[in-house]
Amino acid sequence: MVAGICSFSIMRAPSLRSCQLNTSAALRLCRNIHTFREVQPLRAHRRSLLDSKRTVGLVPTMGALHDGHISLVRQAAAENTDVFVSIYVNPTQFGVNEDLDKYPKTWESDMKMLEALDAELESKPNGSGRITAVFAPTSKVMYPTLPPTSDIDGEGSFVTVTPVGKLLEGASRPVFFRGVATVCMKLFNIVEPERVYFGQKDVQQTVVIRRMVQDFHLNTEVKIGPTQREVDGLALSSRNVYLGARRRKVGVVLSQALGAAEKQYAAGKRTRSDILWPANELVMNEMAKQEELDPSARARIEVDYLSLADPDTMQEVDEVDETKGAIISGAMRMLPLEHPQPGEECGLGDGEVPVRLIDNIILKPTAR
Amino acid sequence: MVAGICSFSIMRAPSLRSCQLNTSAALRLCRNIHTFREVQPLRAHRRSLLDSKRTVGLVPTMGALHDGHISLVRQAAAENTDVFVSIYVNPTQFGVNEDLDKYPKTWESDMKMLEALDAELESKPNGSGRITAVFAPTSKVMYPTLPPTSDIDGEGSFVTVTPVGKLLEGASRPVFFRGVATVCMKLFNIVEPERVYFGQKDVQQTVVIRRMVQDFHLNTEVKIGPTQREVDGLALSSRNVYLGARRRKVGVVLSQALGAAEKQYAAGKRTRSDILWPANELVMNEMAKQEELDPSARARIEVDYLSLADPDTMQEVDEVDETKGAIISGAMRMLPLEHPQPGEECGLGDGEVPVRLIDNIILKPTAR
Repeated sequence: MVAGICSFSIMRAPSLRSCQLNTSAALRLCRNIHTFREVQPLRAHRRSLLDSKRTVGLVPTMGALHDGHISLVRQAAAENTDVFVSIYVNPTQFGVNEDLDKYPKTWESDMKMLEALDAELESKPNGSGRITAVFAPTSKVMYPTLPPTSDIDGEGSFVTVTPVGKLLEGASRPVFFRGVATVCMKLFNIVEPERVYFGQKDVQQTVVIRRMVQDFHLNTEVKIGPTQREVDGLALSSRNVYLGARRRKVGVVLSQALGAAEKQYAAGKRTRSDILWPANELVMNEMAKQEELDPSARARIEVDYLSLADPDTMQEVDEVDETKGAIISGAMRMLPLEHPQPGEECGLGDGEVPVRLIDNIILKPTAR
Repeated sequence: MVAGICSFSIMRAPSLRSCQLNTSAALRLCRNIHTFREVQPLRAHRRSLLDSKRTVGLVPTMGALHDGHISLVRQAAAENTDVFVSIYVNPTQFGVNEDLDKYPKTWESDMKMLEALDAELESKPNGSGRITAVFAPTSKVMYPTLPPTSDIDGEGSFVTVTPVGKLLEGASRPVFFRGVATVCMKLFNIVEPERVYFGQKDVQQTVVIRRMVQDFHLNTEVKIGPTQREVDGLALSSRNVYLGARRRKVGVVLSQALGAAEKQYAAGKRTRSDILWPANELVMNEMAKQEELDPSARARIEVDYLSLADPDTMQEVDEVDETKGAIISGAMRMLPLEHPQPGEECGLGDGEVPVRLIDNIILKPTAR
C-alpha cells in the first residue's frame, strides 16, 4: 500500500481484540456473530428471532467501519435484542466517474471491530442487545437479474425519491440517492428490521430514507445517530483515510464553517444571508490562503455547496421557519495533493485520490 | 346512469346475498370481513394473525370485481388461512389522458360479492381460508407526502422496473408500470402477505411484479391465476362494462386471434411469422369488415400490438425458445360507438368511452 515517496499510516488502526480472522477464513462463523452471504439463511435466522419475540436493529454500512458506525451499533444494541450489520459497497450509488474502485475495503478490521464491540456488549452488567449477524452479500445477490448500473439511464429495478433526491448531493451525484434508496429497500426487505440506524453525517440520506419509509409504508422505524467527530471537529468518514496529514488539516474548515453558521442561528439570526455569510467567508478565506501557498505546502479546495435547507424536503430556504428549524450542510472536494514531500504522510492512495467531504448541523426548531 | 338514446344494462349484475350494505354504512364491519381505511389498524390485525401462525394471501384489486378477481380470491383462500383484498383505484398508473375518472367504482356490489364468497368459503366441508380483511385506503394514505402524479416527469417516490416496464403496455402507457410497481410495493409492505395473487390476463403486470419481488427481495410469493373468460372467449375485465352489445361482439376477435396463434405453436410452429400471421390476419379481416359496415352498425378497432415475447423479459422474439416458451399477447382499442341506435344497449358511458382490451396466452416450454 506504500508507494512513491509518501509514507502511509492508516488514520485509525484498530488495536482491538479479535477472534483471529484471516482472509481465507474471513467469512466463517466467529463467536456469536453469524455472517451471511445469502438471503435465505439470513431470513430463516431472522424468522427464528421473530418467533421468539426478539427485535432486530439494522445498521447498513459499506464497511470501512469507524467510530461513527460503532456508535450506531451501540445505539441499535441499546434499543433491540439483536443487531444486524450489513456490509456492502453498493455500486449503484457511485457515478460512472466516482470512487467505487477506490472505496476502502477493510473486511478484517471491520470484523475485528464488531467482535470487540460485541464482547463489550456481552459484558454489560444490565444486559444489552448483541451483534447477531453480519450480512455481506455479493452484487449477484443484491442485483439478481440485471448487473448493477451506475448510469442514470441504465436499466434495472430502482427506487427514486424526488424531488429531495435531486437536490444538493443528488445534484452533484445524479445516481446517488437512487442507489441508496434502492439498496436500502432491498436490505430492509431482506432483514425486516424493527429499526434501522443511519448517521446524521449523511443528513440528506436520512431525509431520503425517512421519506422512502413513509411513502412506501415500510414497517420499520428510522433512527438517526449523531455525527461522530475528530477532536478538532472533522466529521468521521470512511473516506478520511485518503486525506493524509496536509489535506486532513485543511479539511476541518468545513465543520468550522458550519459551526460559524450555527452560532448565528443561536444568536437569533433567521435569514439565509445572516446565517450563511460567516460560513461562506471562512471557507473563501481558507481557499484563498491555500491558493497563495506553495504547491508543496497547500491543499486546494473546491466548494460544492453550502446550504440552508428545509429539514423535511432539503429545499433551500430564505428564512428559517422557527417551527421546523433547518439544516445547514456543506460539501467540498479536497483536490489531489500537489508536490508531495519526501516522507510526507499522504494517506491511502498517496494523496492522488480527490476526497469529497460533507457535513451538516441541524438547527432545531425554537417554536411550536 | 341511463342517458341519451342508449339503454344500459350492467353486463354482470351480481344477484348475490349480502349483509345489506348501503352507501352510508358501506365501510362498517360486516360479518367476518374487517374493512380498513388506515394502515396502522390493518397492521395490528395482521400482526395478530402472524402471532397465531396464520397465513395471509393478498389479492390487490381496483374494485369493479368480476369473476376473474373472485377466482383469485378462491385460490388465495385455498392456499392461506386469511385473504386480504385491497380495493384502490391507483391514480399513478393512469396516464394524464387515460380513463381514471371513468374507471368503474362499484363498492357496494364489490362488498356483496366478497360477502357471498366468504359465506361460501365458510360452508366448505373441509375448511378453507376466509376473507378476513378488505383494505380500501384513500389516496392520502397511499401517497402520504406528495399528491399522486400521472406525469412521467412528476415528483414523488416511485419504483421503476425496466426494461420490461417500458415495453408493450408500457410503451402505450408510459406511467403504467411505474404506478403498478409503486402501489404494489406499498400494498405488500402494508399487508406483508405470505402470497400475492394476480391474474394472468395482465400478463406483463405479472412479469413486472415477479421481477420487482425478485430484485427487491420482497418476502412474498407471487401466484398467478388463470384468465377468466366469457363463454365466447372474451377475457373478463372491469372495463368490459363500457363496451355495450355491439362492441362486445366485435371485441372477441382479440382472444380468437391469440387462439389462432396458439394453434400454430401447438402444431409445431416456432418462428414469429408462422405463429403470428393467422392472428394478424384475423384482426385485419375484422377491422376491414367493420370499416365497410354502416356507422350505425359497426364497431371500429385500433390495434395497439400483437406480440410474441420472452416470458421473463417481455422482449419480442423471432423464434420461440422451446426451453422457455413464450407469451402471445395483444392490445386493441374499441373506438367510441358511432350512431347509437334507439334502444341499443351501449354499455356504461353510453358507448362514448373508448375501451382498451388486452389478452394473452402463455406458450408453455416443450423442452428442458
